[in-house]
Amino acid sequence: MADTKDYGKPAHARDAREVSHWDSETDVVIVGLGGAGCCAALEARAAGAEVIALERAWKGGGTSAQASGQLYLGGGTALQKACGFEDDPEEMFKYLVASCGPGADEEKIRVFCERSAEHYDWMIGQGVPFKETFLPVEIGTDPYGDDGLSYTGSELAWPFREIAKPAPRGHTAQQEGENAGQLMMDLLLANVERAGVTVLTDALCEPLIMDADGAVVGVVATVGGEEKCIRARRGVILTAGGYIHNKAMLDRYAPVTRRARFRLGCDGDDGRGIRMGMGAGGDAIRMEAACIVVPFSRNRQFVKGVLVNRAGQRFCSEDLYQSLLGEIGMWREDGRVWLVLDDALYEQPQLPTEIAAVGETFEELEREAGVFPPGSLTHTLETYNANAARGEDPLFHKESRWLQPLSKPPFVVLDLTLEKYPFWSAFTLGGLHTLPTGEAIDPDGDVIPGLYAAGRNASGLPAHGYNSGLSLADATFSGRLAGTAAAKRRG
Amino acid sequence: MADTKDYGKPAHARDAREVSHWDSETDVVIVGLGGAGCCAALEARAAGAEVIALERAWKGGGTSAQASGQLYLGGGTALQKACGFEDDPEEMFKYLVASCGPGADEEKIRVFCERSAEHYDWMIGQGVPFKETFLPVEIGTDPYGDDGLSYTGSELAWPFREIAKPAPRGHTAQQEGENAGQLMMDLLLANVERAGVTVLTDALCEPLIMDADGAVVGVVATVGGEEKCIRARRGVILTAGGYIHNKAMLDRYAPVTRRARFRLGCDGDDGRGIRMGMGAGGDAIRMEAACIVVPFSRNRQFVKGVLVNRAGQRFCSEDLYQSLLGEIGMWREDGRVWLVLDDALYEQPQLPTEIAAVGETFEELEREAGVFPPGSLTHTLETYNANAARGEDPLFHKESRWLQPLSKPPFVVLDLTLEKYPFWSAFTLGGLHTLPTGEAIDPDGDVIPGLYAAGRNASGLPAHGYNSGLSLADATFSGRLAGTAAAKRRG
Repeated sequence: MADTKDYGKPAHARDAREVSHWDSETDVVIVGLGGAGCCAALEARAAGAEVIALERAWKGGGTSAQASGQLYLGGGTALQKACGFEDDPEEMFKYLVASCGPGADEEKIRVFCERSAEHYDWMIGQGVPFKETFLPVEIGTDPYGDDGLSYTGSELAWPFREIAKPAPRGHTAQQEGENAGQLMMDLLLANVERAGVTVLTDALCEPLIMDADGAVVGVVATVGGEEKCIRARRGVILTAGGYIHNKAMLDRYAPVTRRARFRLGCDGDDGRGIRMGMGAGGDAIRMEAACIVVPFSRNRQFVKGVLVNRAGQRFCSEDLYQSLLGEIGMWREDGRVWLVLDDALYEQPQLPTEIAAVGETFEELEREAGVFPPGSLTHTLETYNANAARGEDPLFHKESRWLQPLSKPPFVVLDLTLEKYPFWSAFTLGGLHTLPTGEAIDPDGDVIPGLYAAGRNASGLPAHGYNSGLSLADATFSGRLAGTAAAKRRG
Repeated sequence: MADTKDYGKPAHARDAREVSHWDSETDVVIVGLGGAGCCAALEARAAGAEVIALERAWKGGGTSAQASGQLYLGGGTALQKACGFEDDPEEMFKYLVASCGPGADEEKIRVFCERSAEHYDWMIGQGVPFKETFLPVEIGTDPYGDDGLSYTGSELAWPFREIAKPAPRGHTAQQEGENAGQLMMDLLLANVERAGVTVLTDALCEPLIMDADGAVVGVVATVGGEEKCIRARRGVILTAGGYIHNKAMLDRYAPVTRRARFRLGCDGDDGRGIRMGMGAGGDAIRMEAACIVVPFSRNRQFVKGVLVNRAGQRFCSEDLYQSLLGEIGMWREDGRVWLVLDDALYEQPQLPTEIAAVGETFEELEREAGVFPPGSLTHTLETYNANAARGEDPLFHKESRWLQPLSKPPFVVLDLTLEKYPFWSAFTLGGLHTLPTGEAIDPDGDVIPGLYAAGRNASGLPAHGYNSGLSLADATFSGRLAGTAAAKRRG
């Protein structure tokens, strides 16, 4: 087992010739039983393979079970239709390419969009419930209800609404509150057991085992304090999550992401699966990519507020989804962002952060805040108000439904800077380079026989730019494809 | 030899056991005879090693010979002292860490700052002339004169002037015009010949040769149409330049950099050295990093102009060095940047780009331009003028010497957008991971015996953030260290 100081490094595969005894043998071994792992296991079983799934925690679920149970799906799903929305794979493709780039994998996005409606049906088939109701854009998700469909991206925001026909694509499993991911994972885990997958928990894997021809033929797992060598006749699927809890990897690959203090992920998100894959010749790509969120708009009233940077300027539209805002705020504005509200918008419960200033006039507000260049905030707000009164936002084209002059004093500046607001949240999106099938490839682009990766062990749909629900959708979908591909391989 | 379609991939090392005949043998082989290669060759010879240098072009020089001959040096060089400037390694270190991050290699920066004055003396010892005159900040470099010392970074700009005590650190070889790099390289190449280095030109190398223990023991070179295997008893030093001319690598690693249309580099900058190193187990890091320049301020009058983004806002201080501006303009502003001047600043020769608008008033200018939100440009200029009249820039703290209201009509907007202004220039900064000694390391951090990299084949001093002259200084300095280290290795 690697020392802590080696946590940034590849976990080199063991030579199969050094394995004196195989403790178990199966067709497909799955490393990590979160969203990707469960779906991989189910599809591998469905394709007739014997499956062993290894989970380092005492039970499966992983980060998917901590999530809000949102799946970013579209292209005309049954839920979209039931709620009266039109969508098609081409519009979804155009939107995702625009919002997940530059550097997004268009081939993966294409396959995902074409099969997205089918993936929804598959989830229904797994017993995951979705309520056939649409959560209106204006209401938002605070508190979480149990509506099935909502906007969880920037589809309605400029310029995206001009690039692709908008449709709501957030499909949330039905449960009151914001932990529908737990519900979804409980259902999937039960199905995994029922399908006859052998599940071993408290099983920490590392490293992979390779034969002399460079094929992955198994994995070393520590189970109950003992090292076991488990042979995989057809393949090993790495589905062990991202690396947001691995500081050595963040330092090495994603120094900007490391600045976000709220790290989204279960304890196991230490990048071990990625490092195991690298140690078997896999290529880790887009490792700098991350979902970065500045949570401020779950109470949708706040979208009617005004976000400003350290120059007292607006820097983007407030109706961009908060997972895109976070990236802009971190990369472009250095984490220095404030939200201005008036008394009509300010309501309890307030955002859990400091009030930087209160004032009866914009001038007083600006003076109180003491961080903006003289006159800058006042001008920004006066200009914003004058345009909002006409229903216009010539700077960033915020949708007219959110445009309302800040006219009721007192005015308030909420401090959302990285220093003061601890809820800047992040998880990593980089991982092993895979084909859309889930087959892991080396830096030459050659398939590593017997090695698959899915979920956050792989670089998936998003590169720079994220939409809520995309990681869970990508994880479950890519897990399915990898499970099928591994089961069908003749090793 | 790799096919064009494989240009994005590692060039795998050949197994020494497959080499039936060594055509030549020496202590140290150098691949690429630009700035890094020449300095490596000279220091390897000085340490007593026999050296063969292989250059793919008909003569050495590489991209260094196309450069302006600026070396970013400091910490109290003889030239700084002669011109009356104080500097010390600690202030230089603080500045470089701030301007080359996040993700910059602090250990390399430390070594560089401590030995920077000595590196200047070494260059003098090589016969490279530097005129002991300082080019005043206000004059700039259009046309190029032959002054030795100038500011080539953002040392005087905010916030850097508060982070570290500013000093001019651009040391330019003495020659009228902007091609002092050619002079420097001609001198170094002559010294290389004189030192008894065996130089083979028209020699295209690929791949490296490794023995069964994983040590690099030579290189395959095609010379005069024939493949030669050249044995290196002590080591091979890769100094073959960056990859700005390799579109497959740009797509893979640096999709943002690829947008810059003016690619700075000689024909040989196809990343071959980096790919050879990767093919011997080397780790390529910070591959997304690049120097991106929007050249607009060689005529320093233009620093008194106002740069605006598509929202008609200023987005940074105009006195940031143009190689930092380029990064901000590309990464933060999507390449959409305009420069506003008044008739007092507008002079011939003008920047070679389109005039987006001319107007007798700011309102007319904004209307003519037709790209800014109504009122935005007018407000930006009015605010700028009011503050400039008081010698202040509360937004971005531009130095007072550059602050002058735009008050003499007609006013003009110059179009510097990526679409219209073809001079957005770039070269790559990512490369093989090396220790400060130049020893190449693998993803585990283990040294690959016999393999060294320097110059743009390595990831050197700058990560995100560049200062003019840093690449040439880094190349020549890192080349020297690698040459010494390779010569002293006992293979």
